[in-house]
Amino acid sequence: MGHFSFAVASIDGSARLSQLETPHGPIAMPAFAPVGTLANVKTLEPRDLHEAGASLVLSNTYHLYLRPGHELVERMGGLHSFMGWDGPMLTDSGGYQVFSLAHRRALDEDGVTFRSHIDGSTHRFTPERVMEIEQALGADIAMVLDECAEPLDRGYNEQALVRTHRWAERCRAAHTRTDQALFGIVQGGIFPDLRLQSAEFLTRLDFPGYAVGGLAVGESKEQMYATLDETCPALPADKPRYLMGVGAPEDIVEAVYRGIDFFDCVLPTRIARNGALMTRNGRLNIRNAQFAEDTLPVEEGCDCYTCRTFSRAYLRHLFKAKEITGLRLATIHNVHFMLRLMDEIRGAISTGTFADFRAAFHEQHTMTDQTVRHAQRAKRAANVQSSAG
Amino acid sequence: MGHFSFAVASIDGSARLSQLETPHGPIAMPAFAPVGTLANVKTLEPRDLHEAGASLVLSNTYHLYLRPGHELVERMGGLHSFMGWDGPMLTDSGGYQVFSLAHRRALDEDGVTFRSHIDGSTHRFTPERVMEIEQALGADIAMVLDECAEPLDRGYNEQALVRTHRWAERCRAAHTRTDQALFGIVQGGIFPDLRLQSAEFLTRLDFPGYAVGGLAVGESKEQMYATLDETCPALPADKPRYLMGVGAPEDIVEAVYRGIDFFDCVLPTRIARNGALMTRNGRLNIRNAQFAEDTLPVEEGCDCYTCRTFSRAYLRHLFKAKEITGLRLATIHNVHFMLRLMDEIRGAISTGTFADFRAAFHEQHTMTDQTVRHAQRAKRAANVQSSAG
Repeated sequence: MGHFSFAVASIDGSARLSQLETPHGPIAMPAFAPVGTLANVKTLEPRDLHEAGASLVLSNTYHLYLRPGHELVERMGGLHSFMGWDGPMLTDSGGYQVFSLAHRRALDEDGVTFRSHIDGSTHRFTPERVMEIEQALGADIAMVLDECAEPLDRGYNEQALVRTHRWAERCRAAHTRTDQALFGIVQGGIFPDLRLQSAEFLTRLDFPGYAVGGLAVGESKEQMYATLDETCPALPADKPRYLMGVGAPEDIVEAVYRGIDFFDCVLPTRIARNGALMTRNGRLNIRNAQFAEDTLPVEEGCDCYTCRTFSRAYLRHLFKAKEITGLRLATIHNVHFMLRLMDEIRGAISTGTFADFRAAFHEQHTMTDQTVRHAQRAKRAANVQSSAG
Repeated sequence: MGHFSFAVASIDGSARLSQLETPHGPIAMPAFAPVGTLANVKTLEPRDLHEAGASLVLSNTYHLYLRPGHELVERMGGLHSFMGWDGPMLTDSGGYQVFSLAHRRALDEDGVTFRSHIDGSTHRFTPERVMEIEQALGADIAMVLDECAEPLDRGYNEQALVRTHRWAERCRAAHTRTDQALFGIVQGGIFPDLRLQSAEFLTRLDFPGYAVGGLAVGESKEQMYATLDETCPALPADKPRYLMGVGAPEDIVEAVYRGIDFFDCVLPTRIARNGALMTRNGRLNIRNAQFAEDTLPVEEGCDCYTCRTFSRAYLRHLFKAKEITGLRLATIHNVHFMLRLMDEIRGAISTGTFADFRAAFHEQHTMTDQTVRHAQRAKRAANVQSSAG
């Protein structure tokens, strides 16, 4: 991968401070990618993402394939040019969305046929077709087409894994862009032997990076962490490791602790639009009456535009009055919150104090099963239904 | 008015280049005020308004009285502090909104009783009550409570004018804030004798500024311009003149030509959210298929963030996909468009070339009755139903 290089600068326990060079610049890791489903992070602009310190933005192949279409994006100069984001980008494969369509999809060995959630029209994804689409979109990092099985269903995972591996091989063979890195995705549910088998198989295909897929979709926190305990050591040490769809702050801290390098999740942006504002002490539901005359910023010490400029009382007013500006100001804060967290994580690893950071984080952060369940629900809901709202 | 001073720098025909000093800075006139109904210009932030060059922002007394309430705004330090806008502000009196409630209001000599469009609760505005509310909000410029009559109904206008004048006297008497300028509102429909009578009456009350109210609500363009022809010369030359609720570019040019100094209108922000983008050649409906692969900016030569960064094709995609970001990018452009127009108008007056500017403007701009009717409809619709949409 001539346009790409990955270097681990320091290791603290299993946590890694690293950097991935891409054609659109470096990604300092551990990193969090805000999700720009339809070629924009809802309510934000590229300048907002730069201001927040975003180093990677994810966009969804399934959604862009349907609207406005990957050929159109390609004719407009590719995703970077189309959406005005000049930093590193990643596209998923659309597999996760298609498998979430449940009764609207039919799977076979060659690929998957599905009906659009927008107009019911029929479409087909195969590994080769998805590679064509992702290469047309032209993100820096593309993902292989995989099958997302229920993480707790052993039989389903055994079957799905075989297909996922054959599809990974076909994606590898079909992918030709040298300015785009194609990452493999380790599956296998919560079953250590399947995860190891998957890591081993994909490692042999020598991808420039590896994702852990199929987590945060129904298993418990303990099962997720145990799966990472087994999987991370089986991944090549000299390649970046991506935990897909995980974004609850406590999960990020725990995953970094286990050796994960980067993340994406709709959580911070989605809950922002519901009036949930992230702080290190947990979330504020800004609609609550208790904030009606609260002159404090959302989070003291936060240097985002929202916290620098407005009170909780004003944000509550905007949400109560259903003003679009409120959705945006909340999103600005939550994205800043996540990227500041990643910055602090990187700082802690660089000084060899990540264990202390982790302990202090959990002391401060309200980590409840409720929070995790909320995150998982949000993630599943966000999957397909991702239009503005 | 110790905190205020108004100076006309140059006159070109009847068009005036002037400046109004306020406690929150100067307003270079002719000026256009974007409307921030609920203490925010929908989808925008104060920094966006500064970037666009806004020198005055209007907010609506009726809406703020209902949500979040003027007492709350006052306790939060007033409207400027609450919404984070440190430039000049104006509040209307709420009269226009209340009179738009039609069957939900009952008028008497002392005031008007009405039911909230939000929850049906009963409220009462009198001149004294409105002064209390506007002084609590604390804008730099407040407006008297007036009665907005149908502009073509002579009998109604005769009756309404008597009450409007008595209410103007009562507002004048009840208004005490020295850091807030209270402006009178000339009414009288399209009837020159009533307009003159109103101008004369209000001039005797010696307001620091005068608005022309009750226009762009049903009369033709010709009737609006003829009314300005009669009214402007009857207003004191040494006070600012405000044409309320007018914002179609061609109407602004014509009103400046007749001696009006400033304007407000929801038009640019409201039509932006419908995908109508303003250019000097008329409007683009960005949803149109013709823009699907159009790599041009909305308006060539426009230096707004939207035009500097994105193509028409991208904006169309955002609107088709119902992304909030599209509403915002369109609003940014339209507000820039209006403020650039005002800048060019000021430039033309300063060089004594406003007549040429006006001729060139009309040559370029698609001025149709349709445009005006659209503006008037938008204005009436915006009146009460002004939540995010």
